[in-house]
Order: sequence, then structure tokens, then C-alpha cells
Amino acid sequence: MEAVQRIEDVRSRVKAARTAGKKIGFVPTMGALHIGHISLIDTAVADCDFVVVSIFVNPTQFGPGEDFQKYPSPLEADLQICEEHKVDLVFNPTPEIMYAKDSLTWVDVEKLTGPLCGRSRPGHFKAVTTVCAKLFNIVLPDVACFGQKDAQQALVIKKMVADLNMPLEIIVCPTVREENGLAVSSRNRYLSAQQRNDAAIIYKSLCKAADLINAGNTDPRAVIAEIRRTMNHVPELQVDYVSIVDAQTLQDLDNITGRVLVAVAAGLGPARLIDNIVVDVDR
Amino acid sequence: MEAVQRIEDVRSRVKAARTAGKKIGFVPTMGALHIGHISLIDTAVADCDFVVVSIFVNPTQFGPGEDFQKYPSPLEADLQICEEHKVDLVFNPTPEIMYAKDSLTWVDVEKLTGPLCGRSRPGHFKAVTTVCAKLFNIVLPDVACFGQKDAQQALVIKKMVADLNMPLEIIVCPTVREENGLAVSSRNRYLSAQQRNDAAIIYKSLCKAADLINAGNTDPRAVIAEIRRTMNHVPELQVDYVSIVDAQTLQDLDNITGRVLVAVAAGLGPARLIDNIVVDVDR
Repeated sequence: MEAVQRIEDVRSRVKAARTAGKKIGFVPTMGALHIGHISLIDTAVADCDFVVVSIFVNPTQFGPGEDFQKYPSPLEADLQICEEHKVDLVFNPTPEIMYAKDSLTWVDVEKLTGPLCGRSRPGHFKAVTTVCAKLFNIVLPDVACFGQKDAQQALVIKKMVADLNMPLEIIVCPTVREENGLAVSSRNRYLSAQQRNDAAIIYKSLCKAADLINAGNTDPRAVIAEIRRTMNHVPELQVDYVSIVDAQTLQDLDNITGRVLVAVAAGLGPARLIDNIVVDVDR
Repeated sequence: MEAVQRIEDVRSRVKAARTAGKKIGFVPTMGALHIGHISLIDTAVADCDFVVVSIFVNPTQFGPGEDFQKYPSPLEADLQICEEHKVDLVFNPTPEIMYAKDSLTWVDVEKLTGPLCGRSRPGHFKAVTTVCAKLFNIVLPDVACFGQKDAQQALVIKKMVADLNMPLEIIVCPTVREENGLAVSSRNRYLSAQQRNDAAIIYKSLCKAADLINAGNTDPRAVIAEIRRTMNHVPELQVDYVSIVDAQTLQDLDNITGRVLVAVAAGLGPARLIDNIVVDVDR
């Protein structure tokens, strides 16, 4: 495995791999790698012949007052994980390498970026799509892997790739969970042991919602109320949103029907946690 | 030469050429090819081993009341020109092939798209950058050629390519002119013989401006006034803007210094004509 910082080094290594007929896989990350990232890496390694992982805490996607300054960056541990999981190339650029001082270009996906986290984090998705477009253009992968935990992000990236005819396939991998159901996230590092226990209520409330829907409940307000009631068992949890939306368009539903996304965001101590579950309603 | 409409056919032809070690050149056009386009094609052919020309009248870059409906589409003549000038592949998609009905993604270059034509044609450059990003992702060229006649467009595209790390080089080719100085444009077809003669005043006024600047005039207002005075000799000319701006940032100048762009847009009968000249002021 090799770790490089310069864009031209990524290009030359990938070009050599492609010339050798290899299929290129890519996992973009902000580092602080955990078993969720590892599942993405393992998927890319299983599907491709040459796998690139980027580690870049992208400053533009953090809003004012968000956790950019304290976002964990355990580079040595991250590199070891990449090595152990058969990554071929790590791209670990600085912000100065990624962004020219006079950078003026944004890639924006309308509508899909409006609801859910888009409402709480204005500008966030525009920054994510822009940095992903840049990374895709640098790495030129055949396949890139994203996690279903960030459901809206995965959908937005897939839409960008389709709309702009980007020559790659997006694979969305299932959410990886801790034993108590908590979705694995780099931000779980901010939690105390007690908070990690308490945070399990998020997935429990989603599972309860899925049960209600599968039992025939079609009223989103009733199901959302039940999720909120369940999460209230942990008073420390600051609910940002609880939404039941169409899983493709992310638009609110009057009736729960088709493929729906049940999505939650909540603050717990210093961490903002998100989770979701997809329910297919065939009636 | 081959002409294809489907994206997957472009991809397969270009992939074969690349696998054969060929350098890929690309000239995006809206058809109605003229000697300006031909100079772009000849440049691409001289520099590359496999040249793709796209012919696509992009609906999204026309504003309400603009000439989308009547934009000329002489496809047979265009294909013959491409064939004669050693183009390898023509990509001639329909709007339905280029845009999914639920397309939501835009590529936008801030600031550079604000002045000049950006002021008169809101949304125009956002549509141009978006369709070029799509075409670049479909063709994946090593080099793409644009004309200096559309100076702002060339600058915006170069900025997009740099900011998004797109893996290609933009070559900007000099403006090609008719014998009387009129910048060659597909929209010149809208002009009568008399109007074509009259339109020569645009370039004459730009040359006069260059003379004034080279003679030491540093006051943009004075030079702009002289351009307007000259253009007034053709009363039918409806001046949209006359601007002297920094040739890199397109920002207005208090004093003419450095590398400046003198740019003009004006309506003449049914045609909107643009032209420009770059003057290097070394003082």
C-alpha cells in the first residue's frame, strides 16, 4: 500500500493500474475509520482490482458551529486499517491541495438536498457533491462505495453521477451497527459509554416504526409520533427531525406507501447522530 | 467517420481509441458549423489522434425569448464538414438522451458568470457549464477546444475544469473573422447582406479601443464612450453592453492596466452578436 498527498501521484498510480487492465474501486472518507468504512473497503476490494481510499476532512461541508475543528484524525490508525484491508492507495490531501484559493465552482443537486439534513445543514450537500465530483475526477474510479447510514448523501451522490453522466457506478452498502443497534459513525467517538448505551434508542425507535408500518399503519404522523415517544425515553436526546419520506424523492408522504425512508437526526451530548431504515410497503 | 446518438456508443468508441493509445480531442458545438468551428476541429485533429465533435443545440442554455426554436440545424452539411476535416466521431444526441426528465444537478461557476453576458442571459452559463460537464464525462477527452470569440464562456469552462479537477486540457483558439472583421458566428446566418456589412463596425470599434489603450489611454469610461460612439454609426445596432474588464477575473477596472478584455454585445436585426479583444497593457 502507498499513501500519497499529491493529485498527480494519484493520477499516475491509477493510470498505471488502469493500463494494466485493473478495475478501480474508490472509498471516499473523512478518516477516523470504523467498521462501517471497513465494510465499504471490503466491498470495493471484493469488486475491484485496485482500491483507492481518500482520507480528507472536507472543511467546506461543515457549517458554522459544527465539529470541523475537533473532528478526529487518527491518521496512523487509519493507514493501518487500510493496509490490513488490502487498500492499494490512500489519498490524503491537505485542504490547500484540494481547493485553490480562488475556487468558484459548485456542483449542486436540487430538491433532494432540501429536506432532512439539508434543512438543518444549509450548504452541506452542495459541499459534499462538489468535493465528491473533484475526488471522482482525480481518482477516476469505476466504482465508488458509500454507506446507507448517510441515506440522503448516497441518494444525492447517485443523482449527481446519473445527471452529470459521470463514468462510474455507485454502490451503497448496508448500515453497520454496534451490538446494541447504534449505527456506527466516526462521531460515536464523542459519546461516553452511557451515551453510547442511550443512543441505542434511535435504532429501537426506527425498528418500532418499521413494525408499525409493516403491521399496516399508513399514517406518517402517527408513526412519527411513536418514534418521538420512544426517543423521549432518553431525555438527553435533542431530536432534530423525524421524517417519513419517499425513498427516491425524499418528499413527504401523506400516506405511507411504496418504498419509504424513515430517517432520524438527533443530538446527544457533543454528537449529532443520524440513522434511517427503509421499509418496502407492498399493499 | 461515424455519427452516433447514444451515449454508450460514444463511450465504446472512445474507449477503443484510448485502449489503442490514442489521444482524444473534443470539440463541443451546437452545429451550424462555420470556419470558426473548423479552426477548432483542425486544432484538435492536429493535437490528437481521435477527435470527437458533438452537435447538440442545448435547450437549457437558451433563455425565454431567445432563438432556440429557430437556431439553425443543417445536420447533413455539418456532417460533411466533419468528414472533410478528419473528425473520427460525431455525437449528435437528442435532448431526451442528454437530459433525464427528473434531472436536478447543476454545475455553477460563481462570480465569473455574473458580468457581461451573464447579466443579460441569467442562467445561461450555468446551463453551459452543466452541459459541458456532462459532455466531458461522456467523451472523456484529453483535450477540448473552445473559441476565444466566446471569451467569457472559455474562461468559465477553464475555471470549472480547474476547480473540479476534470482530467482534460482546455485549448482556446483565436477568433476567426470574416474579411470585413466580423467575428464568425452561427448567428451571422440571421443577418442580411447589408447587416453583415454593417456588423463590421463592432470589430472596428474594438480595434479603435485597442489603439486608444495602446496609445496610453487608461480611463475605461473614455474608451467605452469611444466604442459606443463608433458603434452609433450603425443606428440599427442595439448595444447590450460595452465593457473593459480584467481578462482573468472579468471584474470592472478603475484603470486600464494588465491584461484586459474589451467585450461587446449588441443586437442587429434578429441576431445577438458578441465580440471581444484582449489587450496587454505593460506599463
